[in-house]
Amino acid sequence: MAEIERSFLLKGDLPHGADRVDRVEQGYIAIDSDGTEVRIRRRAGALTLTVKSPDAGRTRTEEEMELDGGRFERLWPLTTGRRLAKDRHLFALPGGLTAEVNVYVGALAGLRVVEVEFSSEQESDGFQIPDWFGPEITGDQRYRNRELAVHGVPRETSPS
Amino acid sequence: MAEIERSFLLKGDLPHGADRVDRVEQGYIAIDSDGTEVRIRRRAGALTLTVKSPDAGRTRTEEEMELDGGRFERLWPLTTGRRLAKDRHLFALPGGLTAEVNVYVGALAGLRVVEVEFSSEQESDGFQIPDWFGPEITGDQRYRNRELAVHGVPRETSPS
Repeated sequence: MAEIERSFLLKGDLPHGADRVDRVEQGYIAIDSDGTEVRIRRRAGALTLTVKSPDAGRTRTEEEMELDGGRFERLWPLTTGRRLAKDRHLFALPGGLTAEVNVYVGALAGLRVVEVEFSSEQESDGFQIPDWFGPEITGDQRYRNRELAVHGVPRETSPS
Repeated sequence: MAEIERSFLLKGDLPHGADRVDRVEQGYIAIDSDGTEVRIRRRAGALTLTVKSPDAGRTRTEEEMELDGGRFERLWPLTTGRRLAKDRHLFALPGGLTAEVNVYVGALAGLRVVEVEFSSEQESDGFQIPDWFGPEITGDQRYRNRELAVHGVPRETSPS
């Protein structure tokens, strides 16, 4: 279940010809001081509530439930001040990999983050970074969605 | 939607002849610093996840979702250190009212809280308190379930 993922800022313009673009809007209902989070999300029309346990090595729990429209609308006001929206552009990369470019909109406009998921550490280590990728931000907690939703774009490393 | 409710500690022994007894086990998945809470509960076999917004006068949101057994079991570990269990005994009172006696078990054993819900402020104000009720604790935040789950039985007012 552990994700092997690397993240980068986007260097220049967004490439043309995304295979797919989804609008993602999400808001956090509750973020516990122990790190547990509960968020709701609308992605390409699908409505979900997700519970994530704190990062704790191998045992991270993630449970996703579908919501109907009425429930989503009633819960959305609880996420005030803890929201984000982005367009997720998917691009095929060599080797069967996918670059997921998150173009943030609204309060986070200007931030663009590329993520690539790997099936093994080996594949991750050997990844040939495309030249349209910018600085790597893998593991930088400030770029976690929930940090962005609460604190906005990190100051020190504004996107190029 | 606003509940009109009064709460009391139980004075002496539990009356005999409850109309119904339900075991309730609940745990908090996340309690946000703004007061929003997400809890799961098993009550008489029914499994639910509930999101409650902070107390904010008239606009409190409460959304309850059913969980299946597998999901409940996967979420339960996230509530470690934020759990409680109680037996809820229901007794009929004059005037069509119901006394709900919560007999806490486990870490909260010894605590017994009686709650009565009313349909109007008038009915609440005119309530004839049965002599088996003890000190009133309506509005005492220390007796909220989530406070009990996290902090245990309040020290100063140990149950008689």
